[in-house]
Amino acid sequence: MTTRSEVAAIIDHTLLRPESTHADVEELVAEACELGTYSVCVSPSMAPLDLPEGLHLACVCGFPSGAHISEVKAAEAAGAVAAGADEIDMVINLGLATEGDWAGVEADIRAVREACPKSVLKVIIESAALDDDEIVAACRASEAAGADFVKTSTGFHPAGGASVHAVKLMRATVGDRLGVKASGGIRTAEAALSMIDAGANRLGLSASRAILGELD
Amino acid sequence: MTTRSEVAAIIDHTLLRPESTHADVEELVAEACELGTYSVCVSPSMAPLDLPEGLHLACVCGFPSGAHISEVKAAEAAGAVAAGADEIDMVINLGLATEGDWAGVEADIRAVREACPKSVLKVIIESAALDDDEIVAACRASEAAGADFVKTSTGFHPAGGASVHAVKLMRATVGDRLGVKASGGIRTAEAALSMIDAGANRLGLSASRAILGELD
Amino acid sequence: MTTRSEVAAIIDHTLLRPESTHADVEELVAEACELGTYSVCVSPSMAPLDLPEGLHLACVCGFPSGAHISEVKAAEAAGAVAAGADEIDMVINLGLATEGDWAGVEADIRAVREACPKSVLKVIIESAALDDDEIVAACRASEAAGADFVKTSTGFHPAGGASVHAVKLMRATVGDRLGVKASGGIRTAEAALSMIDAGANRLGLSASRAILGELD
Amino acid sequence: MTTRSEVAAIIDHTLLRPESTHADVEELVAEACELGTYSVCVSPSMAPLDLPEGLHLACVCGFPSGAHISEVKAAEAAGAVAAGADEIDMVINLGLATEGDWAGVEADIRAVREACPKSVLKVIIESAALDDDEIVAACRASEAAGADFVKTSTGFHPAGGASVHAVKLMRATVGDRLGVKASGGIRTAEAALSMIDAGANRLGLSASRAILGELD
Repeated sequence: MTTRSEVAAIIDHTLLRPESTHADVEELVAEACELGTYSVCVSPSMAPLDLPEGLHLACVCGFPSGAHISEVKAAEAAGAVAAGADEIDMVINLGLATEGDWAGVEADIRAVREACPKSVLKVIIESAALDDDEIVAACRASEAAGADFVKTSTGFHPAGGASVHAVKLMRATVGDRLGVKASGGIRTAEAALSMIDAGANRLGLSASRAILGELD
Repeated sequence: MTTRSEVAAIIDHTLLRPESTHADVEELVAEACELGTYSVCVSPSMAPLDLPEGLHLACVCGFPSGAHISEVKAAEAAGAVAAGADEIDMVINLGLATEGDWAGVEADIRAVREACPKSVLKVIIESAALDDDEIVAACRASEAAGADFVKTSTGFHPAGGASVHAVKLMRATVGDRLGVKASGGIRTAEAALSMIDAGANRLGLSASRAILGELD
Repeated sequence: MTTRSEVAAIIDHTLLRPESTHADVEELVAEACELGTYSVCVSPSMAPLDLPEGLHLACVCGFPSGAHISEVKAAEAAGAVAAGADEIDMVINLGLATEGDWAGVEADIRAVREACPKSVLKVIIESAALDDDEIVAACRASEAAGADFVKTSTGFHPAGGASVHAVKLMRATVGDRLGVKASGGIRTAEAALSMIDAGANRLGLSASRAILGELD
Repeated sequence: MTTRSEVAAIIDHTLLRPESTHADVEELVAEACELGTYSVCVSPSMAPLDLPEGLHLACVCGFPSGAHISEVKAAEAAGAVAAGADEIDMVINLGLATEGDWAGVEADIRAVREACPKSVLKVIIESAALDDDEIVAACRASEAAGADFVKTSTGFHPAGGASVHAVKLMRATVGDRLGVKASGGIRTAEAALSMIDAGANRLGLSASRAILGELD
């Protein structure tokens, strides 16, 4: 998969800076339409959005810390879906992951899953903050809780964003049963293509225009 | 509008007894399919439901007391929509209505409206507990807050359910800008038809089978 | 325990009609102070209240149908506590109880328990709608979920309110590990005293003044 | 104010890394007790905590992006208070601030204020991401919405943390009507004291032990 349109079709065109304005988001939407991306991915306070037919809406949830109680994440996900979101990108409870409380991690994901049973649910595991065993365990907890995708990174963690290693490990863990989304720090076409090679079937990008431009 | 299928097409087939089971609701859905009703109307804890294409799902909200805080009603509506509800039947804050605090009533409705901007919102004003001036004011507050329908009754208030008088007054107040749903205590075809004559374009019925049977 | 002040000290002085106004609640509070009741018990949309030192605030939750999703009940309980409630009187999911899904009933209670870990939690089992086995199971689920009290009735169910039989059975089930609150339809001193004899250590009353008057 | 105990008495001893564990928080609490700080400040998913008498609990809300819907922030605040929090440190909607929609910023704060009317509410304006006019407007919106404190920073924004300039401007804007909390990047006693000189009467610190050690 190396053509521009094939790549565009798996991009969540993303804007998550806290100080982003409604005008910035309108620009994001216009750009997404022009580039032919799969979706726009924004903060929940930006929904509802007036989107053209065919452009999906993804909203983040428990973002970016993940350190909210499950009920609040569930309410946030439900609110986003009610406001028009097709997809929810939630952050796991990283504290529970660090403690090795994988039942707790799974229960937290499940609370969101139950709150939006008809939506695509992506689970951000913040892979750069986890070791390999933790990445595998986080993917398994996501799958057990009914997630549709595992996703590498928020893009806001000091430990960094997506890596080829993490994507490969996540894909190896979930097989073809779940999707894998690479996100966080992907700023060149080379990086994007290497994520796809590693097993990603969705990309979270802010620099979509520049990256797709390189593919022409 | 007197043919059986025309009436069926405007019925919210309804089951709201607190002790209703999932099996009861499955039966309700089967009956709704057989009868050709517009929707099923159930408690939010019954969603999600596995419904055939074309049968809508309405969930009640703040039901039946309406005496919940706006944030909780909003969260409940969003949760129901995320679980698959197309329509939300919310109860107004009757205490505020009785105080004559119509701005408060409107703000409460608006909170739910904003929580489910893409859904059909029906506002239950509990008309049997209000006098005529209050009915008019409640309809105006509903319209101002962006409701799609005004609805007479929960069916659980000791003051009673729908009346021809209330439906006429509600229709006169909202014109053709909003829908009017008659519900609560409608148990015969004669009663159903008189509600339609009075201006109702949606009916909330539990005895749908018996009523439609009378129309054959 | 038959003196007026002893009885007053275990009364939740209660006003839950949906059309109750803020003025009605102010009157309730004044009466509670005068009578020396333990608390006032009101709808969550009435909180916060300006209460004198020593008078407790109880708010109902999931009231009166209990047919809300657990997350909404949890949010409602937390909201009431944040607004000053000391005690939460929640209604169980009667549909799950009727299905015999006691694990589901317990999980629903536990969600509220976790949302207000520092508050007194009373669980309304709507005893008049349950048979004896169900009453026992509902009490056990309440205890397992961490409740502080089991409570007979909402006062709004067509099947009726508190009965001596139900209170005895509830007390026999929970021993002295939990409290038992009798509520719903208690309108005379004789009825109140028989509930206490049967094992109730809290009473939910609207007619507190009349009942205490009889005890003079 | 330069004695160690005076400084300790205005410190919110803070741990907000997403991967913090329950064990880390227990250590934070032990340290807070030993140092004599005013409170511990943690993520909402860490509550409830078992705290000694006299040590307060502050929980962040809408943290750190602030880009959540108001209803979710309100639910999160209420949940934290119900779990034992005395103080709520919420983040404003920075997108609305950047747009200059100060009525929107104020409404967002007010939603949280109403959800926890009995708690101390601190409003994090993320001063390093705002210009002077915006800092003043954010403080005014906070005061109008009923906040108790304005607070400089989350500590997680790339634009930086507290500055003497921002604290002075915030104090000048709110006078002695509100508190001013300096937080974010304060790692030395000199920095802490200069914040106090500039007008701060509360400090958010992670390096409390080292800073207080310098004051001996």
